[in-house]
Amino acid sequence: MARSRMMAFAGVVAFAAVCWVLARQSLFGKPPDTHDTDRAAITAVLKAQQAAWNRGDVDAFLVGYWQSPELTFSGSNGVSRGWDGVLARYKKNYPDRSAMGELTFSDLEFRFLGPDAALVLGKWHLKRDMGDIGGVFSLVWQKFPEGWKIIHDHTSTVSFPQPNP
Amino acid sequence: MARSRMMAFAGVVAFAAVCWVLARQSLFGKPPDTHDTDRAAITAVLKAQQAAWNRGDVDAFLVGYWQSPELTFSGSNGVSRGWDGVLARYKKNYPDRSAMGELTFSDLEFRFLGPDAALVLGKWHLKRDMGDIGGVFSLVWQKFPEGWKIIHDHTSTVSFPQPNP
Repeated sequence: MARSRMMAFAGVVAFAAVCWVLARQSLFGKPPDTHDTDRAAITAVLKAQQAAWNRGDVDAFLVGYWQSPELTFSGSNGVSRGWDGVLARYKKNYPDRSAMGELTFSDLEFRFLGPDAALVLGKWHLKRDMGDIGGVFSLVWQKFPEGWKIIHDHTSTVSFPQPNP
Repeated sequence: MARSRMMAFAGVVAFAAVCWVLARQSLFGKPPDTHDTDRAAITAVLKAQQAAWNRGDVDAFLVGYWQSPELTFSGSNGVSRGWDGVLARYKKNYPDRSAMGELTFSDLEFRFLGPDAALVLGKWHLKRDMGDIGGVFSLVWQKFPEGWKIIHDHTSTVSFPQPNP
């Protein structure tokens, strides 16, 4: 009888330990501030975007964005809404290869806002015969089952000091 | 003996149920998408900012921002860094009451990115004798023990269609 109670108690303790570990894993799936995998995954998306842009493929560039009517893009024209709206904005502003130029992203800064959300700041630059342009962006990312996607983009054009003319 | 085993089993089941509830509470502290309290808290910060601005108190306006060297503000001048940097930017761009005008925030849109992070889109408008200006902002918020604070601001000026001249 005493042995059976002890075994039951041991069972409860073991179960509690398993619950505790599972709860902790759910809550703190990764050690805080060690988002190496996420950082690499987001960087890969941005590199794929850059490559798509530089072969003139705006549709492939858009794959980095959340394919949802809730996607938003803010800038000096206000807010574009939805995947289709953002695609239309890009196609209107960059109608051909000469307007698109050669894209470079740089100076990426990552801030993780939770296990499934990140803010990424960075610079963009378009090298173009018709005149370079560039600026800064703030990207809000969310991690979906299919990977990290941009759910909001706020982009500004900035007149950076130009390199030697 | 059989009864003692049954009671032990019942104990394990009850304990599992308690663990499950506790784990769920930790994971989903609030019912998803019911961030009424957070939404109200963030709105209150923005209302306090608007009131501070409209009495010419830029320092009080800045209280809505994270008082950290890691605070960032992006716009058409690039990225301002740190609480002091953002304060300096505001004081430079809005040196007096006539430049500050009367501020209104509108069209707030909330997206919660986790229990302690939110993205808020909205519009800003300055009614001024020297000419109105306005645009859109994207604010990334984080919940600190002392409350919700803006950790990143990306603001653009937009030439909205003006009301009757």
